[in-house]
Amino acid sequence: MKSQRSRQIKLAAYVMAGPVSGHHGGWRYPSARTDILSLDYYQEIGRQLEAGLFDMLFIPDILAVPHKFRNSAASQLIHGALGALRLDPVVVLTAVATATKRLGLASTISTSYIEPFQLARSLATLDHLSAGRAAWNIVTSFQPAEAANFGQAGLPDKNQRYDRADEFLSVACKLWESWQQDAVVLDKTTPLFADPAKVRAISHKGEWFDVEGPLNVSRPPQGRPVFIQAGASDRGKDFAAKWAEVIFVTHSSITSAQAFYRDIKERVARHGRNPDDVHVLLGVVPVVGETLAIAQEKQALLDRLTSPEAGLSTLSYHLDIDLSEFPLDEVLPAIAPPGVQGHYKEVAELSQKQGLSLSEIGTRYAIGPLRDFNGTGAEVARTLKRWFDERACDGFMVQMPYLPGGIEDFTRLVVPELQTLGVFRSAYEGPTLRDQLGLSLPD
Amino acid sequence: MKSQRSRQIKLAAYVMAGPVSGHHGGWRYPSARTDILSLDYYQEIGRQLEAGLFDMLFIPDILAVPHKFRNSAASQLIHGALGALRLDPVVVLTAVATATKRLGLASTISTSYIEPFQLARSLATLDHLSAGRAAWNIVTSFQPAEAANFGQAGLPDKNQRYDRADEFLSVACKLWESWQQDAVVLDKTTPLFADPAKVRAISHKGEWFDVEGPLNVSRPPQGRPVFIQAGASDRGKDFAAKWAEVIFVTHSSITSAQAFYRDIKERVARHGRNPDDVHVLLGVVPVVGETLAIAQEKQALLDRLTSPEAGLSTLSYHLDIDLSEFPLDEVLPAIAPPGVQGHYKEVAELSQKQGLSLSEIGTRYAIGPLRDFNGTGAEVARTLKRWFDERACDGFMVQMPYLPGGIEDFTRLVVPELQTLGVFRSAYEGPTLRDQLGLSLPD
Repeated sequence: MKSQRSRQIKLAAYVMAGPVSGHHGGWRYPSARTDILSLDYYQEIGRQLEAGLFDMLFIPDILAVPHKFRNSAASQLIHGALGALRLDPVVVLTAVATATKRLGLASTISTSYIEPFQLARSLATLDHLSAGRAAWNIVTSFQPAEAANFGQAGLPDKNQRYDRADEFLSVACKLWESWQQDAVVLDKTTPLFADPAKVRAISHKGEWFDVEGPLNVSRPPQGRPVFIQAGASDRGKDFAAKWAEVIFVTHSSITSAQAFYRDIKERVARHGRNPDDVHVLLGVVPVVGETLAIAQEKQALLDRLTSPEAGLSTLSYHLDIDLSEFPLDEVLPAIAPPGVQGHYKEVAELSQKQGLSLSEIGTRYAIGPLRDFNGTGAEVARTLKRWFDERACDGFMVQMPYLPGGIEDFTRLVVPELQTLGVFRSAYEGPTLRDQLGLSLPD
Repeated sequence: MKSQRSRQIKLAAYVMAGPVSGHHGGWRYPSARTDILSLDYYQEIGRQLEAGLFDMLFIPDILAVPHKFRNSAASQLIHGALGALRLDPVVVLTAVATATKRLGLASTISTSYIEPFQLARSLATLDHLSAGRAAWNIVTSFQPAEAANFGQAGLPDKNQRYDRADEFLSVACKLWESWQQDAVVLDKTTPLFADPAKVRAISHKGEWFDVEGPLNVSRPPQGRPVFIQAGASDRGKDFAAKWAEVIFVTHSSITSAQAFYRDIKERVARHGRNPDDVHVLLGVVPVVGETLAIAQEKQALLDRLTSPEAGLSTLSYHLDIDLSEFPLDEVLPAIAPPGVQGHYKEVAELSQKQGLSLSEIGTRYAIGPLRDFNGTGAEVARTLKRWFDERACDGFMVQMPYLPGGIEDFTRLVVPELQTLGVFRSAYEGPTLRDQLGLSLPD
């Protein structure tokens, strides 16, 4: 028998610090908790994810209440849509850190509206207090509504945003490396609090940032937080291939997921990195039941709990165009929205190939992608394993349809089946998130 | 018997998220804990302060490792001095929030290196998760070493810094007010997540900031965090009189403290506010023992655990001048340092009036101000009561000489004596920090 371990599925849970996670109707689900402003809500989510041996809790972020649809935030607020309310993810994750021991803690933070020193310090602190469980989902921010909350009239173009992000990452890494791993001595008698030979200024002078350093926090347990990225454009994929250790993607078919997977692993190799050191996680919104019929009824109930307007409000934000200007009962005309091209392609295909009206598009957008992942625990586990085995991904970003019930269902019904199939851990690999992901410390 | 409650002492604990709190030798004290990078250290401090019915845990901050002394950070790092290491205070306070129920949580955050939207969101999140216990110590930052970590070659002058801070506060308040208290409805059936008539953009356009809003976090339980300020200059005192609900000061004599107290209360009244709505807390470093002799021995041991170099390293940072250029065994010559005038006045007086050498000045600076507050619990309590009764202050910022023992000593020995004297609570007044401080919600 070989001692080498077979390839294992990685699982992240996509949970917003707000009303919506995987499904716009989720907060209205009868058993969904509504105390989304409380400590206990997030701590309970963390405890349940840890009981399910998830690699990490992943919190996406938006820095504005969207107001593109009808030029008003009303649709977002009424429907509790994507950006209606979002707590600060680092604060929420710190609270979760105190209720868990092994769960990874991934915060989305934009490189566009914060200084590298502050970000490096904040995540180093979280990594220390959580004993090595911090991760950073790196985004560059593309929304004018966000820019308007930070005194910026317009946004730099995508290449400039990525140039800035690239330098931001370099500076942050230098700051995390400004203390050697063994710099803190804490010898009371000598005295020697920290060895000055092992702490260095970084004296970075670049195009976007001048930072003297050193950081005023010692090197965190993981060296630096695990880097996560979700860029789907050519530039975004190269950025991810250079920096990311986890890549989050959504795809509407296994073939497009496989094509992305091959492409990104090749790009990683071209950057001189080992493709196995990058985990591609595919976004799915599984609705799980004790029987297929129960799962289907749950899905039907969820779908009745959202509306075209909720989805169109969020889609208007993503496309950065007011979709209320188009007739609801006709297909979406060919347009060139200034927002996310990937989202536009997705809905334009749906609208044109399947002849869906704008109203139907809204509903589809509100209920999330990829309905293949519904059913009993065994069925969902088999589907996940198939996509994983066929190299569509290395694991999944499980977008919970409702909370905390979606986690309970997944943990009780799907996780044991994945374990039986031999593709998921039965215990955490070690104390840090890098241990769960099989990633070594950075040099 | 009158139902009106007598005036009560307010107590904050000054605890750094780093090696030094009230005394540069504190981390070297034999029983001091050295796991200052761990979750448990800060949670235990929080639990002990809550057992002692403290109003709040106050975390000061610095955004750089000082390197003025000998143009090097070595003295800070070797001696574990003031700015050798500092964790992010908001992350630390969130961790403390999860281990406590009533303790207020005060974070120092500079208005100079963060955007109002981010600060407002972060503290609103902490106020929600802690159910109404957040406070903000507002500083403007004056140190070139900090500016150099944020891409700023020089610092604006003090008036400009305060102008910016003034507008920063206005913007932050508008963001905290952008959701009415009852805007979040969370009605699953209607549906009505939040009432759009009760959420407004702020459309702020000012000299320093343009912020569209609304905040993407609903109005926090306290309306906004409690505002703390420590400005000692004329401009600083007026800023405090306008905004602050707690003012933190240090004085070397009761007469100077009384003069400040009268002055600031008059300024508060001139701003149309009730002087009782502003609590002046005086910084003290009490060393408490079961007998006076024990307290004195503890103080002597602490003093032996620091050195002139530790104090001079920190003083060089505060004065923004390299004191290693002057002879150690002579009095400090008359200079005009660019840093904090208050600190210079304090040490210049010591040096000239008492004839202290620079080396002696360094030791004195390392061991903290106001030795009058040492002794048995009863002695310390009587001294505190006297300063309080004689209107030198409304309470104390207790700078713990060592941790967590300094809190244990204070809680076991001083707090019961204060209660016996009738000047300190025997139970928390209510769930929020505003309740403990007797402050009403902002309009």
